[in-house]
Amino acid sequence: MENRARVLIDCTDEKGLVYKISKIFYDRDLNIDSNREFVDKEKSKFFMRTVVTGDFDINELETALQVVVPQNANLKVIEPRRKKIVILATKESHALGDILIRHEAGELDADIEAVIANHDVLEQLVRRFEIPFFHVPTESMSREEHEKKVSELIDEHEFDYIVLAKYMRILTSSFVSCYPRQIINIHHSFLPAFIGANPYKQAFERGVKIIGATAHFVTNDLDEGPIIAQDVIPVNHRFEWRDMQKAGRDVEKIVLSRALNFVLNDRVFVHGNKTIVF
Amino acid sequence: MENRARVLIDCTDEKGLVYKISKIFYDRDLNIDSNREFVDKEKSKFFMRTVVTGDFDINELETALQVVVPQNANLKVIEPRRKKIVILATKESHALGDILIRHEAGELDADIEAVIANHDVLEQLVRRFEIPFFHVPTESMSREEHEKKVSELIDEHEFDYIVLAKYMRILTSSFVSCYPRQIINIHHSFLPAFIGANPYKQAFERGVKIIGATAHFVTNDLDEGPIIAQDVIPVNHRFEWRDMQKAGRDVEKIVLSRALNFVLNDRVFVHGNKTIVF
Amino acid sequence: MENRARVLIDCTDEKGLVYKISKIFYDRDLNIDSNREFVDKEKSKFFMRTVVTGDFDINELETALQVVVPQNANLKVIEPRRKKIVILATKESHALGDILIRHEAGELDADIEAVIANHDVLEQLVRRFEIPFFHVPTESMSREEHEKKVSELIDEHEFDYIVLAKYMRILTSSFVSCYPRQIINIHHSFLPAFIGANPYKQAFERGVKIIGATAHFVTNDLDEGPIIAQDVIPVNHRFEWRDMQKAGRDVEKIVLSRALNFVLNDRVFVHGNKTIVF
Amino acid sequence: MENRARVLIDCTDEKGLVYKISKIFYDRDLNIDSNREFVDKEKSKFFMRTVVTGDFDINELETALQVVVPQNANLKVIEPRRKKIVILATKESHALGDILIRHEAGELDADIEAVIANHDVLEQLVRRFEIPFFHVPTESMSREEHEKKVSELIDEHEFDYIVLAKYMRILTSSFVSCYPRQIINIHHSFLPAFIGANPYKQAFERGVKIIGATAHFVTNDLDEGPIIAQDVIPVNHRFEWRDMQKAGRDVEKIVLSRALNFVLNDRVFVHGNKTIVF
Repeated sequence: MENRARVLIDCTDEKGLVYKISKIFYDRDLNIDSNREFVDKEKSKFFMRTVVTGDFDINELETALQVVVPQNANLKVIEPRRKKIVILATKESHALGDILIRHEAGELDADIEAVIANHDVLEQLVRRFEIPFFHVPTESMSREEHEKKVSELIDEHEFDYIVLAKYMRILTSSFVSCYPRQIINIHHSFLPAFIGANPYKQAFERGVKIIGATAHFVTNDLDEGPIIAQDVIPVNHRFEWRDMQKAGRDVEKIVLSRALNFVLNDRVFVHGNKTIVF
Repeated sequence: MENRARVLIDCTDEKGLVYKISKIFYDRDLNIDSNREFVDKEKSKFFMRTVVTGDFDINELETALQVVVPQNANLKVIEPRRKKIVILATKESHALGDILIRHEAGELDADIEAVIANHDVLEQLVRRFEIPFFHVPTESMSREEHEKKVSELIDEHEFDYIVLAKYMRILTSSFVSCYPRQIINIHHSFLPAFIGANPYKQAFERGVKIIGATAHFVTNDLDEGPIIAQDVIPVNHRFEWRDMQKAGRDVEKIVLSRALNFVLNDRVFVHGNKTIVF
Repeated sequence: MENRARVLIDCTDEKGLVYKISKIFYDRDLNIDSNREFVDKEKSKFFMRTVVTGDFDINELETALQVVVPQNANLKVIEPRRKKIVILATKESHALGDILIRHEAGELDADIEAVIANHDVLEQLVRRFEIPFFHVPTESMSREEHEKKVSELIDEHEFDYIVLAKYMRILTSSFVSCYPRQIINIHHSFLPAFIGANPYKQAFERGVKIIGATAHFVTNDLDEGPIIAQDVIPVNHRFEWRDMQKAGRDVEKIVLSRALNFVLNDRVFVHGNKTIVF
Repeated sequence: MENRARVLIDCTDEKGLVYKISKIFYDRDLNIDSNREFVDKEKSKFFMRTVVTGDFDINELETALQVVVPQNANLKVIEPRRKKIVILATKESHALGDILIRHEAGELDADIEAVIANHDVLEQLVRRFEIPFFHVPTESMSREEHEKKVSELIDEHEFDYIVLAKYMRILTSSFVSCYPRQIINIHHSFLPAFIGANPYKQAFERGVKIIGATAHFVTNDLDEGPIIAQDVIPVNHRFEWRDMQKAGRDVEKIVLSRALNFVLNDRVFVHGNKTIVF
């Protein structure tokens, strides 16, 4: 019986880790389909993502690996499986639409469980794809009340990740802390440039010659979470800020989908405020 | 007799400007070799760079144009000529070296009048090219005294532009204000990200996936002058900050040389805190 | 009454063209919203795209311009209007999906009149957006018969452009010649590299470090028509050809949509086998 | 005593390779400073580059590794050392100059033993850096005679690699076969587009929107050797072919230096007609 597993290890670096881990694979006669390692020497941290195949029991493998990695190790042995996501959006359809099209084509390694938006503009688009859409208006409600409703809706669904596909509301610390390393945002600037509101207007005012987008995990600090992917496009003096916004949308959606693809394939390790992307 | 001139106009926008200007060219039977215009509608500003050839007197042409453009217009009619530059440097040779090689190959539209450095590390390199090198050490000297010496050295030379080829000293307002729109700097980050000291360390700490460089005119505000050119390269978690620095040097030198080429060919207009690059 | 028109001129270069044309604008008290010119000196060809606003009659303006441009000039004075397109596709949804999402968001300056495909895979996706879908299978049919059916379907619709959104059939000369400069294709390589079938496999076999996509007008010569837009992404030895294909799709769809946007806004001139994109 | 070695393995893939190799490191108490592996599953080939440090004898390590890798394995255990290069050039100085400046700054991990050129244009530049320059004119000489002279000059020097820094002569098979995987060329196009003479003119004629450069090992087939690095820059209709050439030079020199850096650091494996770059 041919099994397949992703072995994800994130631990203090020690001499012999690769040897001890590969011995466990060797003893079980496993094939190594792909193997990526990284050592942060300064912080003495070891990261490894290995895909193994063979005739093995996933729990037994995990237990065996547990013995050889340091006690504080963050070890996961995962069967590749389709993940589940909940998407938060506002009014713009480009990032959401890109995910919907990939989903429809079977190119997204995830099921979209629900789309939740603070406006109803995107309802028709989402319903076209027969995906549950929830409108949670913000009117006559405090930020906390609104978030509570959103949070309740999220929690009614199974999900691995929450994807902010241009969700234009700032999230409170208490919301964010409920979903550690589970919220992925696309910020419409080349962070850390132009943190905060309307980065395209800021970019226009500053007269930059390149604009970009940044996909990152959301932490308590606004626009300060670990960066997963970034990309840029050239602009020039003929771009008004609306033109930058329009051109930027292409970068936003591609960067978000690229980051999402990394995350859904368990290729991303969070390391302090950074990421390792294998 | 075939003359050639660059006509540079920067003025309040008015109806009929193109007509009135092109009529002057037409009346003198001039050829338009290239023509670029831009209108900032919001600020109602008109920019034009036209290269004309024909049998004409450059002063007469300027006088004629003066009549049809608004009174406050910034009008220049320039015979293309080799410019002169003074370079300021510190210890790193990549940006300076790139300019020296282009100069030697006859590909820089400027003569290098002098290289002034606050260290003597680059003296041998510069002397290899038989270009005057001046070492102005900073020891036992106030910032103002040092700048005064540098300024005196600069002023002994003819120059159109001062090029900061990784000159790692912050310039005072009084120095900068002596050379308005004449100082071109290369900053080793994708501004406005990572303003200030050691941007590569900042980029490393932030965990960005792309680094860049920015060539800009120097104004009183540190790293805030009008941007002329920017470019970027991808990095990843395997880059320590020294690796980013090393990789970034290629971007720095190319961006500086590209910006310098624009400026030396009179292709750059400063517009508030931005540039128009034709 | 405020009108707006795009003036598109493509003619033999002559002295005084800009003057004569701008005089006509001036005499009618028109505002020039944007103005781009290009002269191919070697071939002595003049290209101009000007957007004018004001109180004017579009036919009178065209007649007046007709008088001052050379006889052979290709002159158009166009009121900006929403164009119509017919899309041809096969099985892949990324390029089609990108256009559908933009269309839904009102960001495409065109109506999609119909989608015609040689497979029925994309039917559901297209129907979700309530856009007419036509399946023209190729079975038990010659290439000419199939094209005839497609052509008849196309001709039943109003259209300005035919967009090949990864239509994986080679078109015959007789088909192409029915729609000169009206067919826009996205080729999944950085042309002229990897002309023909399965460029990703070719790219993989060749071991390139960058792959790309090319949007171009379709002419009789396969993959040889005037290029409108191109873009690239880096790849490396870890990419199998399927990975290149997957990564390449993002470039394909963005490049096609970018080219389509240029064309729909009348920003593209065909000049021999090249394009001028203003 | 702290040693450091690069372990380079290129062999048939087998189960247990990583285990057996890492066991050898572990048994000798070595630190793994960096480790990169790649398996070409289709061709069943295994590639590994590991940097180890510790108290070890390099020959003993190699012998021990020899035992565990397949018999046909290409195994090298190398002490990092400064390489030696011979440069061939013609008239253009940008690629050569870039290497000279890096060399002077101590940023090139190689000594330049000699520069050999078929013209004397670059003699002064090379002599400025006190590097031996040899002019081998081609006049009144067959291609074979000329190559014989060049080859004799090369062979008088110690070298690891021959760098063609825009050497504009086609090399014969017999010359190339003397230096297998030792000749690195920079081709001034995004290969495989525009193989052969004057690729910028070809690119101009084709009307591409992006141009590039390709660094590759030289094999018997012109412009067909394994690609090490590529990069591109955007161009547009305003670029004549001379402008493309000028802009392209920046890409050429950066790509060549980047490839050279990979090669000098033993980061490149040749795999059929491709490269693995760790």
